[in-house]
Amino acid sequence: MALIVKKFGGSSVATTEKIMNVAKRILSEKQPNDQIVVVVSAMGDTTDNLIELAQGINKDPYQYTREMDMLLTTGEQVSIALLAMAFQTLGQKAVSLTGCLAGMKTNDVHTKGRIQDIQPKRVHEELDKGNIVVVAGFQGVDEKGDPVTLGRGGSDTSAVALAGALKADTCEIFTDVDGVYTADPRVAKGARKMKEITYNEMLEMARLGAGVMQPRSVEMGEYFHIPIHVRSTFTTEPGTIIREDYTMEDKDFVIRGVAHDKDVAKVAVLGIPNTPGIAFEIFSALADAHVDVDMIVQSIRNVETNITDMVFTVSLTDLPTTKEVVDKVADKLKAVAVLVEKDVAKVSIVGAGMLGNPGTAARMFGALSRAGINIDIISTSEISVSCLVRREQMEEAVNAIHDEFFPKKG
Amino acid sequence: MALIVKKFGGSSVATTEKIMNVAKRILSEKQPNDQIVVVVSAMGDTTDNLIELAQGINKDPYQYTREMDMLLTTGEQVSIALLAMAFQTLGQKAVSLTGCLAGMKTNDVHTKGRIQDIQPKRVHEELDKGNIVVVAGFQGVDEKGDPVTLGRGGSDTSAVALAGALKADTCEIFTDVDGVYTADPRVAKGARKMKEITYNEMLEMARLGAGVMQPRSVEMGEYFHIPIHVRSTFTTEPGTIIREDYTMEDKDFVIRGVAHDKDVAKVAVLGIPNTPGIAFEIFSALADAHVDVDMIVQSIRNVETNITDMVFTVSLTDLPTTKEVVDKVADKLKAVAVLVEKDVAKVSIVGAGMLGNPGTAARMFGALSRAGINIDIISTSEISVSCLVRREQMEEAVNAIHDEFFPKKG
Repeated sequence: MALIVKKFGGSSVATTEKIMNVAKRILSEKQPNDQIVVVVSAMGDTTDNLIELAQGINKDPYQYTREMDMLLTTGEQVSIALLAMAFQTLGQKAVSLTGCLAGMKTNDVHTKGRIQDIQPKRVHEELDKGNIVVVAGFQGVDEKGDPVTLGRGGSDTSAVALAGALKADTCEIFTDVDGVYTADPRVAKGARKMKEITYNEMLEMARLGAGVMQPRSVEMGEYFHIPIHVRSTFTTEPGTIIREDYTMEDKDFVIRGVAHDKDVAKVAVLGIPNTPGIAFEIFSALADAHVDVDMIVQSIRNVETNITDMVFTVSLTDLPTTKEVVDKVADKLKAVAVLVEKDVAKVSIVGAGMLGNPGTAARMFGALSRAGINIDIISTSEISVSCLVRREQMEEAVNAIHDEFFPKKG
Repeated sequence: MALIVKKFGGSSVATTEKIMNVAKRILSEKQPNDQIVVVVSAMGDTTDNLIELAQGINKDPYQYTREMDMLLTTGEQVSIALLAMAFQTLGQKAVSLTGCLAGMKTNDVHTKGRIQDIQPKRVHEELDKGNIVVVAGFQGVDEKGDPVTLGRGGSDTSAVALAGALKADTCEIFTDVDGVYTADPRVAKGARKMKEITYNEMLEMARLGAGVMQPRSVEMGEYFHIPIHVRSTFTTEPGTIIREDYTMEDKDFVIRGVAHDKDVAKVAVLGIPNTPGIAFEIFSALADAHVDVDMIVQSIRNVETNITDMVFTVSLTDLPTTKEVVDKVADKLKAVAVLVEKDVAKVSIVGAGMLGNPGTAARMFGALSRAGINIDIISTSEISVSCLVRREQMEEAVNAIHDEFFPKKG
């Protein structure tokens, strides 16, 4: 007997026909004694339609966060009711539970709630009665019992956290991709599906631009020691399992994958007199403005005059704020110029294996060099190496690196 | 300072524009210290659309009553969120509460729930913070916290019951008619709006076919001693107040109104040997089949042979079941024939005043006689007299009676 939490996103339940298919699929894979909890999102465009409706009242409805949560939580409530009916129509006992009824307790930060506690007594009771339990993702209730949504990617987080609280054997996340790939298959021709990846590697992949899973849900899986199986809604093939460690056979590769990120801009503050505290000046001002700075390089341009350049990257959405903040600080520091470049991209390799394999970074640089790709900035973490390259060379860079570490077979 | 509960139906909140209008209207009538609770239904066709969606899963979704309630309660949750946003957009503090959050406790008869208890602590708390409180009508939760809908007319019942639990000063029901009329204005040209009517008269009017208010909500008003003000969504004119007793000036008329009902069929069991227990035989069989019998007349056709006829009315929807049941009983009683007539209608006068005015029934019969209308069956209650007439003469009958008791002015 296994207790399995399965999560289906909005596109998997976009129509009543698709909801019936999800129900059929779950029943076809169910072993007689399995206990199944299904976490679902709102149907297809429901959330967008509800937001549009609210805009009929006020152009900026998100200023009323509590009422937006009251509104948006109806989306999942519709899909859980329909999916429970679908199971019953197929002869399977089932019951739907809102976030509230499933015991999902959150803080009261409406539209961006965080799960604080899960009391899944009712879920266990319904499972013990032989029900498949269908739970609304993306939502919980605060201390007052008011509905709270978890914000972006919240359904994945609901599913993994619920799996943790239920001490489930596994949490299956059904998506429109069939697993985690060694690189984005749309970019790297040779990309292949991984059988397994560790939580840390998955988090690093996500941080570096690979968007399969929301980082919070991966952290949640690590916290609860719940294996997360990322797999396709459309096929029954196994996908990729995110877990503590992987089995021997999957340790062949030094790196786990190649990630890329186009949502990057480079900012250079040029010609600053190199005095103590200039890094603090720049980056504390950016922190105050809630700008996340990613790669940072300080280079000494001229040893005699002690003039330095400070170069770093931010996301494109943060660029206007960054420019504003940095221009002020640059004036104060008597910098010569502030340059901004938008046509850049970041390519990264990720893998816990590189810890025991010196020279992994060098292999990456070599591959880029042989492909004639110039590296602008390099940054490293324990389990990753990232290089900033020109945007138009990004695809070539991903392929060159991928071919180096995952040579084509045959 | 007054505590007022206002109820707006689905057609009053069918679009976001209409929701804004409801909010504006409430604010324009609000006195500075008034505490306002607004009970709303789902927007326009929302409930029908949700039912249609469920039919995409199963042609008969109402067999899954719990899941239907989970589905349908989202309708009001959407409208309360939007109306609360509308108030806030207009600068008025407001908060939306589901049936659950407003403390509406029901039994667990899904899709046909009855309110068992109301614990409106949260409603009072929010009012005391200066909020207009927007409550979802038509819904509550059972002991387990599962959503339960109240069935047809449930929003009126929610509003009146909540007004009772809050010890409100009045409960205003906003509808697409502007009050209770002495007769249906579409039928009786001289029909006029009543200022007041008692709970009992209103219940009798409703029982006899006048469909302004659901009987359960009127009973609830009587139980809690809450005056119910039935008024128009579209004008600010006062409507009709349903209360314990009316003021002197409104006591001028012997009757309160004329009701009519086309949902009637006449059944005659002819030529039965008149032995004890034949009424029991017929009507207990119908009761077992859940058929409500309305008017009953037993006539002795022939005193010598002691042969009798039993004539009664049922609603048209119950006619097929009635025919089936009665045919069997007629065989057993050796009746000569069972006749069914569908082209009949019931016209009634209602008014507590007729108790002290003997001859009121005679005035009704006289008016019908002068109009050349034949009376088929007569039945009376303490505060009403009903006559069965031919369907095609119904309109003429209503006008003749109305003119008799409410003579045209001038």
